[in-house]
Amino acid sequence: MRNSPTVGDIGEHAVIQRIRERVPAHGKGVVTGIGDDAAVVEPDRGALSVLTTDTLVEGVHFDLAHSSPTDIGNKALAVNLSDLAAMGAAPRHALLALSLPAGWLVADVDEMIDAFLAQAARHRTTLVGGDVTAAPGALVIGVTAIGSAKRRRVLGRDGARPEDIVYVSGAIGAAAAGLASLRQADHPAGPPPEECRRHHRRPEARVTLGVALGRNRAARACMDLSDGLGDAVRRIAAASGVGVQVDAEALPIHPEARTWFERAGLDPVAASLAGGDDYELAFTSPPAFRGRLRHVRRRIGDLPITPIGIVTKEPGLRIRRGGKDEPLPPGYEHFTGVD
Amino acid sequence: MRNSPTVGDIGEHAVIQRIRERVPAHGKGVVTGIGDDAAVVEPDRGALSVLTTDTLVEGVHFDLAHSSPTDIGNKALAVNLSDLAAMGAAPRHALLALSLPAGWLVADVDEMIDAFLAQAARHRTTLVGGDVTAAPGALVIGVTAIGSAKRRRVLGRDGARPEDIVYVSGAIGAAAAGLASLRQADHPAGPPPEECRRHHRRPEARVTLGVALGRNRAARACMDLSDGLGDAVRRIAAASGVGVQVDAEALPIHPEARTWFERAGLDPVAASLAGGDDYELAFTSPPAFRGRLRHVRRRIGDLPITPIGIVTKEPGLRIRRGGKDEPLPPGYEHFTGVD
Repeated sequence: MRNSPTVGDIGEHAVIQRIRERVPAHGKGVVTGIGDDAAVVEPDRGALSVLTTDTLVEGVHFDLAHSSPTDIGNKALAVNLSDLAAMGAAPRHALLALSLPAGWLVADVDEMIDAFLAQAARHRTTLVGGDVTAAPGALVIGVTAIGSAKRRRVLGRDGARPEDIVYVSGAIGAAAAGLASLRQADHPAGPPPEECRRHHRRPEARVTLGVALGRNRAARACMDLSDGLGDAVRRIAAASGVGVQVDAEALPIHPEARTWFERAGLDPVAASLAGGDDYELAFTSPPAFRGRLRHVRRRIGDLPITPIGIVTKEPGLRIRRGGKDEPLPPGYEHFTGVD
Repeated sequence: MRNSPTVGDIGEHAVIQRIRERVPAHGKGVVTGIGDDAAVVEPDRGALSVLTTDTLVEGVHFDLAHSSPTDIGNKALAVNLSDLAAMGAAPRHALLALSLPAGWLVADVDEMIDAFLAQAARHRTTLVGGDVTAAPGALVIGVTAIGSAKRRRVLGRDGARPEDIVYVSGAIGAAAAGLASLRQADHPAGPPPEECRRHHRRPEARVTLGVALGRNRAARACMDLSDGLGDAVRRIAAASGVGVQVDAEALPIHPEARTWFERAGLDPVAASLAGGDDYELAFTSPPAFRGRLRHVRRRIGDLPITPIGIVTKEPGLRIRRGGKDEPLPPGYEHFTGVD
């Protein structure tokens, strides 16, 4: 592998050719795939198109000392599929924009692309086009994902109503604990368990859950946790013109993350709420939708869905801990630090 | 303006908010614009979606010493609209992914966004979403454009047939001459005319022409000249399984570019064929389509369309100069130099 030529050795067109050879010949709804000025796809009949783009930047979103090409290729698509899932949209097509430093090994590019395409295949998503350019410094990997949803099945952020229950999928905090250890290798609390680091390196988009919530009309508002649960709750509340009361004791904090936060002298609740890079979904659903939620649960295997709070008519975000109400800790900003 | 705060001062969310405030409230086909996990758009009834993404990287595609924020914002969208035009697609929606160094002035970001949105408005394109992240070094601006075309109106690269006439719009070579002068400020041939530098800095996508060619079914194959006319002809020939014979004397080389190339001791024909960043369209059309082309000409004002060669049954790319056939000079590769 270390004998691999570099991107600079083979040139932009050869990289595109290698990607093209790896993409399956036929994808659902693909009229023209990679190789023309633009891709041509056929929208699902009577459906809306759902569009999202998210970029990973070396030194900002990942560090080559901690993330393998497989991690990067996987995550670049996952963060986009997570946005589609949060809208209740089924992923269909993707575009990949790579800005590649000339010194990258072709073998590493291949590995990154293979991970991207393996995940695309798992979610029946076809890579239909993209762009490969040189990069003077950092690797930048931009992905656009296009999904499909029926009009009345789209999950926005603004539909939450008072008395809705707030749910979150999976567990929270593991990615934040994993990231903390990556940032500081000699952390006095010691390294967090591999499980936490894996959560940060290899997020999994909740595609099945998002699509099931949309198709069953089981949620009134939905958002992913890319910037943390605190941020998601804040945005749903703002868009819907409501407040949210979170129950700290109900939060499904990943047990290994909780242990590590405590060892590190951090408040597990605050750290888990603030921590980004959990690609779970937060959504609200009134008690009357319990039957619809049962249908959803049948589709998602053993992924837990935990009620963590309630939507309130009076605005404001509070968290109840030990019988006391506190304001929710603030969210996350890219420019305040490297994530 | 120099008193402007920086991107690092105000943070990612504030940049997104500034963009959001600049986007018109209503766009055709927009169900959900900026501000949710993903955008939701309604495809035109019975039409296909045409998708393209192109990224501009500081130090690769532009240099802040020569390009203003307005130039960059304008070009980032133009190169994408050009790809849609080459497919015969009308632009509808766009996504913008900005990786911004923290030291950028907010006033410069505003200027870049304003240029992007002004051009979007000229082509009835709505910005529906995007992503703003920090960048450790270079500015990276990635755009995805989504267009619309009827199934039998899409212009591919593979439809050229023997006896088709090869046409090119506008003039070629000006961007290449403009770029040469940017690369070497003290060029012995002196600076090229401002007109050439403007061509490189402010390309104009041939949206009206591309859409008219598609709607009138006036072209069998079409491509833009982002990597030069030589490259476009080569790719159309390869995709269509044909050859092309170009007539050097017929090439619409920009007169000021020709003069500068000659002063610089360069062959104007070779330099204009190899030079990228001309965002004109090359297309092929049989003599029987002359009536359809007349309809197209009526739509495009004074933009010239020049026949420059003919499609041949035997493969191979030749150029006829002074009664002699030569092979076409090769195209352009990003990794072989900074464009």
